[in-house]
Amino acid sequence: MSSTEAYLLDSIRLAMENVRERNTWPFGAVVVRDGKVLARAVNEVEANCDPSAHAEMQAVRAASRALGKPDLSGCTVYASGYPCSMCLSAMYLAGVKAVYYAYSNEDGEPYDLSAERGYIELARPLAQREMTLAYVRARDEGIDLYEAWREQQRQ
Amino acid sequence: MSSTEAYLLDSIRLAMENVRERNTWPFGAVVVRDGKVLARAVNEVEANCDPSAHAEMQAVRAASRALGKPDLSGCTVYASGYPCSMCLSAMYLAGVKAVYYAYSNEDGEPYDLSAERGYIELARPLAQREMTLAYVRARDEGIDLYEAWREQQRQ
Repeated sequence: MSSTEAYLLDSIRLAMENVRERNTWPFGAVVVRDGKVLARAVNEVEANCDPSAHAEMQAVRAASRALGKPDLSGCTVYASGYPCSMCLSAMYLAGVKAVYYAYSNEDGEPYDLSAERGYIELARPLAQREMTLAYVRARDEGIDLYEAWREQQRQ
Repeated sequence: MSSTEAYLLDSIRLAMENVRERNTWPFGAVVVRDGKVLARAVNEVEANCDPSAHAEMQAVRAASRALGKPDLSGCTVYASGYPCSMCLSAMYLAGVKAVYYAYSNEDGEPYDLSAERGYIELARPLAQREMTLAYVRARDEGIDLYEAWREQQRQ
């Protein structure tokens, strides 16, 4: 068995524990760097009352805490299911180099466990989105926010 | 001044506090439902050592805790800057109905504060992505993970 398959099996076992022991979502994720496991996590949306607490997201957060910096450059994430657009973006923005997943959206579809929704919304033209997204230019008095930020960065 | 502008000004003031008092990212967000402010948050990536702790994300999480459920149906988010793909996805998946922002990506571009990166990566064909994303079908012995989940749901 390759190490990729072994880590994916670990993510599946985490997911299975979430189903069996906590009666909740079947998703697990493992973060690895240089052959060392930095984090293992499961979906904790219900446990934490946090809609962002997907397995990959919790794994990214735990790995960052383990490393002591919000930068996962050189890390690989092994996820039981295809990551949603939130988690994929989080992993990308954190510098994760690769993501492997064991169950595709097609595998999840018959169980209503596909992660397609977010991607579909993002791909829609703005006028056809379900969620309104609109620019309302507002500015406070005094120095501009971004100018203040630039000044602060220069100090 | 419209209520939209007032909430956006609040998000800008939160962002300014983050710059002035904590010397960090100029982003703030406010979550409102039925005219009531549920959450006010700032970017806490550095404070929390959490790459996902953008202002909108922290606001979504705080609003969910305030409501006691991971469901923000009927909520509106006011963000100082254009939300990144992670936060936009999180808000959409949580059921947020509308998002208004005061600074566009174009406004942020000269300050390197545009949120385009994640969207650009998601729009790339898989083969051209910076972050590898690959399906490696793995299955544990015994009952299938998703079948186990379905069984659990039926009980």
